Amino acid sequence: MKHKHEIRLAGTGGQGVILATVILAEAAVLSGHYAAQSQTYGPEARGGSSKAETLISNRPIGFTKVQHPTCLVAFTQKALDKYSDGLSRNCLVILDAGLKVPEGMNPLRVISLPIVETAKMVVGKIQTANIVTVGCINEFLGISDQDKLEQAVLKHIPKGTEGMNMKALEEGIRLAQNWKEKHRS
Amino acid sequence: MKHKHEIRLAGTGGQGVILATVILAEAAVLSGHYAAQSQTYGPEARGGSSKAETLISNRPIGFTKVQHPTCLVAFTQKALDKYSDGLSRNCLVILDAGLKVPEGMNPLRVISLPIVETAKMVVGKIQTANIVTVGCINEFLGISDQDKLEQAVLKHIPKGTEGMNMKALEEGIRLAQNWKEKHRS
Repeated sequence: MKHKHEIRLAGTGGQGVILATVILAEAAVLSGHYAAQSQTYGPEARGGSSKAETLISNRPIGFTKVQHPTCLVAFTQKALDKYSDGLSRNCLVILDAGLKVPEGMNPLRVISLPIVETAKMVVGKIQTANIVTVGCINEFLGISDQDKLEQAVLKHIPKGTEGMNMKALEEGIRLAQNWKEKHRS
Repeated sequence: MKHKHEIRLAGTGGQGVILATVILAEAAVLSGHYAAQSQTYGPEARGGSSKAETLISNRPIGFTKVQHPTCLVAFTQKALDKYSDGLSRNCLVILDAGLKVPEGMNPLRVISLPIVETAKMVVGKIQTANIVTVGCINEFLGISDQDKLEQAVLKHIPKGTEGMNMKALEEGIRLAQNWKEKHRS
């Protein structure tokens, strides 16, 4: 793993972005890294856009808030427009299919993936989009081994949904693998 | 509500301290406040102690990490000993029954409450101790109206457990109310 990742997920309240970032943090710790996870809320966030963040490092972390994301994933255009502050050119930007990079933002790597569509049509439940995302991010960033990742997911999902969530994770990993395969030069 | 609260929950991995702090943050926002929620993890946290924190303010929050808790709740002696740094004399310390204030720590207000016991024996499920705690904290700090608090709890619990969790919340509120009743001078 790279020595430090600053991951930000931006979506709407119902999309489970907090849980996704908690799972990434815990998978990182299971793999021997340090992690911090956080989110801020304001009255304006009610029913609107929200973000959640995870810092992962190979050193203890004092500060819990992401300042310059190295990976930004956005699920809605509104959340992307709102939470793309502090973005450096080197940030890996992963957008749900159909979203557009806001004007003035100029990241080197923008990857468009049908995350929500995959959750809905392939896994069969739109609410698993956050777990699909966990698989994607881990495949791109190489944070954790797959067994540790599965362990972290299983810790946080309701009993009886294990199969569905493991499929969601697999599909997320596959989305990223397919993308890498296609763009290998 | 007081203008600012810095709440820290310290326990073990399985005690749902993250969820409790997320619920408190969301209830605060439903009540028109600003909130931030965070936790840090290190390799040493595996299977051991963990903490999670919530900042609540009537102003936007830039920094997400608690520096000087105004309210600390501890579920295990180990977690209390480990996560009582930065404690000021004015911090409200709520301890699960049987825990002891570490030497050298001298808070003005230490409240011992049978939180885990109540979850296990009155609510009937030890895993609801975190929701009992949410009720307690809110009753002591006056963060949110009860309906907003219930709304935040219901958003985060598995379907089918609504009745049990509402009971846990009620029992938490009752624990705090009884304590206040008893200590009214």
